[in-house]
Amino acid sequence: MIRFLTAGESHGPALVGIIEGIPSNLPLTAEDINIHLSRRMKGYGRGGRMKIEKDQIEILSGVRFSKTFGAPITFMIRNKDWENWGERMKIEGDGAGIGKISIPRPGHADLIGYLKYRFDDIRPVIDRSSARETATRVAMGSVSRHFLKACGIEIGSHIVALEKIGYPDLEAPSEILEHLVAQGGEALWKKADESEVRCLDKSLEVKMMARIDEAKEAGDTLGGIFEIIVTGLPEGLGSYVQYDRKLDAQLAAAIVSIPAVKGVEIGYGFANAQRPGSKVHDPIILKDGKFSRSTNRAGGTEGSMTTGMPLIIRGAMKPIPTLIDALPSVDLKTMEPIKARVERSDVCALPAASVVGESVVATVIANALLEKFGGDSLEEILERLPKR
Amino acid sequence: MIRFLTAGESHGPALVGIIEGIPSNLPLTAEDINIHLSRRMKGYGRGGRMKIEKDQIEILSGVRFSKTFGAPITFMIRNKDWENWGERMKIEGDGAGIGKISIPRPGHADLIGYLKYRFDDIRPVIDRSSARETATRVAMGSVSRHFLKACGIEIGSHIVALEKIGYPDLEAPSEILEHLVAQGGEALWKKADESEVRCLDKSLEVKMMARIDEAKEAGDTLGGIFEIIVTGLPEGLGSYVQYDRKLDAQLAAAIVSIPAVKGVEIGYGFANAQRPGSKVHDPIILKDGKFSRSTNRAGGTEGSMTTGMPLIIRGAMKPIPTLIDALPSVDLKTMEPIKARVERSDVCALPAASVVGESVVATVIANALLEKFGGDSLEEILERLPKR
Amino acid sequence: MIRFLTAGESHGPALVGIIEGIPSNLPLTAEDINIHLSRRMKGYGRGGRMKIEKDQIEILSGVRFSKTFGAPITFMIRNKDWENWGERMKIEGDGAGIGKISIPRPGHADLIGYLKYRFDDIRPVIDRSSARETATRVAMGSVSRHFLKACGIEIGSHIVALEKIGYPDLEAPSEILEHLVAQGGEALWKKADESEVRCLDKSLEVKMMARIDEAKEAGDTLGGIFEIIVTGLPEGLGSYVQYDRKLDAQLAAAIVSIPAVKGVEIGYGFANAQRPGSKVHDPIILKDGKFSRSTNRAGGTEGSMTTGMPLIIRGAMKPIPTLIDALPSVDLKTMEPIKARVERSDVCALPAASVVGESVVATVIANALLEKFGGDSLEEILERLPKR
Amino acid sequence: MIRFLTAGESHGPALVGIIEGIPSNLPLTAEDINIHLSRRMKGYGRGGRMKIEKDQIEILSGVRFSKTFGAPITFMIRNKDWENWGERMKIEGDGAGIGKISIPRPGHADLIGYLKYRFDDIRPVIDRSSARETATRVAMGSVSRHFLKACGIEIGSHIVALEKIGYPDLEAPSEILEHLVAQGGEALWKKADESEVRCLDKSLEVKMMARIDEAKEAGDTLGGIFEIIVTGLPEGLGSYVQYDRKLDAQLAAAIVSIPAVKGVEIGYGFANAQRPGSKVHDPIILKDGKFSRSTNRAGGTEGSMTTGMPLIIRGAMKPIPTLIDALPSVDLKTMEPIKARVERSDVCALPAASVVGESVVATVIANALLEKFGGDSLEEILERLPKR
Repeated sequence: MIRFLTAGESHGPALVGIIEGIPSNLPLTAEDINIHLSRRMKGYGRGGRMKIEKDQIEILSGVRFSKTFGAPITFMIRNKDWENWGERMKIEGDGAGIGKISIPRPGHADLIGYLKYRFDDIRPVIDRSSARETATRVAMGSVSRHFLKACGIEIGSHIVALEKIGYPDLEAPSEILEHLVAQGGEALWKKADESEVRCLDKSLEVKMMARIDEAKEAGDTLGGIFEIIVTGLPEGLGSYVQYDRKLDAQLAAAIVSIPAVKGVEIGYGFANAQRPGSKVHDPIILKDGKFSRSTNRAGGTEGSMTTGMPLIIRGAMKPIPTLIDALPSVDLKTMEPIKARVERSDVCALPAASVVGESVVATVIANALLEKFGGDSLEEILERLPKR
Repeated sequence: MIRFLTAGESHGPALVGIIEGIPSNLPLTAEDINIHLSRRMKGYGRGGRMKIEKDQIEILSGVRFSKTFGAPITFMIRNKDWENWGERMKIEGDGAGIGKISIPRPGHADLIGYLKYRFDDIRPVIDRSSARETATRVAMGSVSRHFLKACGIEIGSHIVALEKIGYPDLEAPSEILEHLVAQGGEALWKKADESEVRCLDKSLEVKMMARIDEAKEAGDTLGGIFEIIVTGLPEGLGSYVQYDRKLDAQLAAAIVSIPAVKGVEIGYGFANAQRPGSKVHDPIILKDGKFSRSTNRAGGTEGSMTTGMPLIIRGAMKPIPTLIDALPSVDLKTMEPIKARVERSDVCALPAASVVGESVVATVIANALLEKFGGDSLEEILERLPKR
Repeated sequence: MIRFLTAGESHGPALVGIIEGIPSNLPLTAEDINIHLSRRMKGYGRGGRMKIEKDQIEILSGVRFSKTFGAPITFMIRNKDWENWGERMKIEGDGAGIGKISIPRPGHADLIGYLKYRFDDIRPVIDRSSARETATRVAMGSVSRHFLKACGIEIGSHIVALEKIGYPDLEAPSEILEHLVAQGGEALWKKADESEVRCLDKSLEVKMMARIDEAKEAGDTLGGIFEIIVTGLPEGLGSYVQYDRKLDAQLAAAIVSIPAVKGVEIGYGFANAQRPGSKVHDPIILKDGKFSRSTNRAGGTEGSMTTGMPLIIRGAMKPIPTLIDALPSVDLKTMEPIKARVERSDVCALPAASVVGESVVATVIANALLEKFGGDSLEEILERLPKR
Repeated sequence: MIRFLTAGESHGPALVGIIEGIPSNLPLTAEDINIHLSRRMKGYGRGGRMKIEKDQIEILSGVRFSKTFGAPITFMIRNKDWENWGERMKIEGDGAGIGKISIPRPGHADLIGYLKYRFDDIRPVIDRSSARETATRVAMGSVSRHFLKACGIEIGSHIVALEKIGYPDLEAPSEILEHLVAQGGEALWKKADESEVRCLDKSLEVKMMARIDEAKEAGDTLGGIFEIIVTGLPEGLGSYVQYDRKLDAQLAAAIVSIPAVKGVEIGYGFANAQRPGSKVHDPIILKDGKFSRSTNRAGGTEGSMTTGMPLIIRGAMKPIPTLIDALPSVDLKTMEPIKARVERSDVCALPAASVVGESVVATVIANALLEKFGGDSLEEILERLPKR
């Protein structure tokens, strides 16, 4: 079983993650991870921070001569602007003379975190609850997806809607999506990466970028819906035998654990709920002597197990809560109404969430794979995987 | 921490569940559980099975003189038609002469379960993957909700859409919902229970029932969207500090672990993804000297912690896959195309899923409560809860 | 991963356990379990209770036509004297008129359980903390050991010391033990079962039984040390890469979770601690072209992984705390000193603990096996096991 | 719940650990951790490595202005001789030209790790399975013990036997131990620290050191038995209600997870197994109106819950397997018999294991405390702790 923990603050010295349970003999370099870290930082509508970051992973353990060896892998991402922030997020000292934040931003963890942990300053809440933590999770997930890749499983993603601008019924037309999926998840993310809003449709892309410009102008923010697609899956990962072995449930938790993501569906979950059964389920067919489906409306699972069809998962991201045109709040020092604090922020981080989504899904699937095939080394697992 | 396992087959001798971690001295009787089991069995559009069941819980451990005592609690629900099924689901013997099922139903676990576990008969898949398992989960969850009730926390639910028939924007108007929520989750479920489709709006109810009749006529099935509302929550349950401590994520997993539920949102997750930030976040205000929000579009959590506002969670249920007008499939014995097998089934089980949803959410919240307040006995916990 | 929960009180209606994660297609009947339940009830020096019990398992789920199918397996053991106890351990009612126990027995959970759970009666502590719970654990473990058996792994046990009566240095001489171990764990337990104190040495056996008679006469109780031996293990189960993946640690927890067992060692842990390194470690040799060891003082693990040599684990059981010649205590009602209550009890339950030990070890090893080889069905796992 | 993962190799760039679940507002500095890291490195009979190490913690997250804030805490310990080892444990590159180790040392993870993970070099096994990993665990545990200290709970340890040299019956006489325990666990470890073998008895100390000299001369190694004592515990931590909630079992796993520790006992587990019940159990008495025990032979738990008496746990450490006078082994390249490789090593690391033992026990107890008292901040927990 793969497990991981992440640590680190947005303005602390470094972000750190430890992942363990990855089989031995998997080729792995910092570059395999950095590529996805860099993808997480892109996207039209990001604020100034993204320019500062330029995240680079440092591997501190678990890799030798560019190969894993079964030991826990540690990643460290140094925060480049730590020097500027050193005083405000100092590890030692007593913080004398450092200003405290007392105005919580609606939609963030600010107020509740402050009350829950009995702070006298909102800063520690902001720093750990920041979406910057997802850099670590992208690193963790990139190991898992690298392992999956070695097993023939690829993960891609793209944007189906930015605010109200999206595909009809939120489904990308098959002429846009199908051939990419046929090539595998990697072809999908590479194609989506060509767009600053990770949208496969050029005309939608233009409208999305214009909408971002407009929102920026208005001091507003935007969310939207991303779609993750996993290809090359063997059938039978996950199980129906106990509620917490259900792959659907594990995937849902992973997606909703991404900051600002408040909705998830496997396949066309919400749309299917509004269609009759005769229009929802996927006929079972034989194709080249193997079981297949003539459609994939279920999104690649039945009974919470993979069917071997592409796995489709969608996440709904709310607009970022830090508005330039700030919302009403209360000053915790004076207990007087006041406008919320404005922190440097993005207009829209949906493309980043899409990349984070690819990453968090990877570990869920890698674990389901290990549960079915077991094994301590990559070779041992490859020997057991069904031939294609 | 509360943990539970469920066991039992749809046509086996009994369904059984063990739940442990419930504090001592909580008053509890079989009736407290049976009331929800009976609610799970209702609903317009259920098949013949519901008349057979009449589930009654038998408590086998963990309760003495109508009170818990910290020990694991066991529930058993005997399957009333076990006598008729004894031969087909016999524990002992070799099954000689018992017919095997070889035609999988699209949309069910049938085909993949058969392949994954290397069966020569689909029957064992059908029997464990059946939604009948949710009876046990309702029993488990009913203990947790009974514990929450003693702490002032109540859970209700209702239907916001049956197939395409629902509220505009899928949000029940405040004149229908608000006063019920003000009275607490229990007032909500009791009111919803008055409708056979658990719909609070009489005119929608009529349309929903007509649509069920129509689908039944056509041999088709229907899904929809239910909404769970939890009231009386203290602030600060859940946390943002590590991905798997996020209450949103835990709730998402619980809801999607319900059979046929393929989507979930916290608050108006998908709708909010399609609105600008200025229309989504909830201003922080003071109300009677306490922090509150002027709206609750987030659905009761910020930073994946409870805000103290009502918690709102929605599940999207696909239409039941067993269609009278059956879908194409393949006979696993002959490997020839054939229409899928038809098992006795419901046209629509959405009202039941809504009750199951209330139940699975209960244990997630009870665990978050225990994490914050600790304690071995009900008295110890009540002493620590914030006064209202 | 195999998981299980046990439930039930000593004098409640039934003991129940649910175990899940067992692969499909494993042949299993109630008889496979009952044989070990019956072994647990034997032993020289048991009290009257053992005659009442005659435990028989009832399988309620997870087995069909004498085979597992991947679904959770439920066992129920009805308490035969529930009828006599019905009033005192009634599930419903208010307990009016039922006498309460207020004098805790030193060495039992009585006092602390009463305080921890805020009871007004010690009865609920006695009933759940009773060693009767181990009947359920023997049932759970017997499934795992049955699965291991199908994989060529067998578990046996015997007694090395009853109080002070035992082998020199607590090690059974090789002429007694070696040929049994060579035949496998099953030959060992069958041979040990021939003795009422599970001792392989006839002259020690006589002394042990005499000592039990003597202790009984004196109103005293006796403990001792049992030894579990597992044969047929593949190498490489468990791991050193993270503290909680260490097989030694998992085995230690399992053994010490048996009531009254307060010490455990892997191999000759305590004796080896008092020998120089040159007398402790096992030279690596080649035997028939395979790696082996010329001795097995480590007890079958190195780096907390199985070496392929027999696994040896020992548990130290304290004497049962219920003495006929009772110890000083305090009446919780009057807060006056008083002699402890005397419940019907055994003089020595060491042979039973030895059987329980075999059972709890089984699931730990089965999980380590599944971690290495994965798989959903017995066939899938057998295909992957190294050939012998 | 507190969780942690450790990572890092003996000769890699750094050791890293992440611990999470520690309440907010706990004062914490690097010095609080370094003090125990430094204690781990001491002891008569350590090899050259100890002089190189001089471990110093670097805190990378979770602490601000010398206080925790609920976020995960990261520790990094840089390996000082990484520069010398850089080539052999390089993260990147292909290892061309770097010599491989092919002769496994009996008693270490070498052979089995090599086979399990399918390596062509024993180096990666040696580097992760090295006891150097315990530096990270001491860091992790030191946070937990610092938290416990703030709650009035202290942990100490000392050596009861080094090889055969120890107290009669392995119990320190009360005139040596009792007054230290009365002052608290901290007084105990400070006193033991005054001895290079952590022995409280001067005359034994002299013999132990002489025995180490002798063994060193002979190219041999030594183990022994350490004793951990925890003071200031509230009653009722842990539980009897489910096998894996037993505090005894959790403590046993923690102790046996220390490298080379192959035995553990709670109280005088093995000795008590060889005494009659009348000599083992601790009479319950009233002392100043509170429940107490006239003796503490159980070692501070009953029914696997703390009694409020000092908690006593003992670990048996085998002699270090790396002998100068090396044991027979097999060269994995040539498959020829050969003497085992000799790595720089200690004659005796028992004093270090004793300090590690204090640390691993701390997190088990901190978790049991959090389970009973809950809470997110130190203040919240202190409010709930019983007054003394």
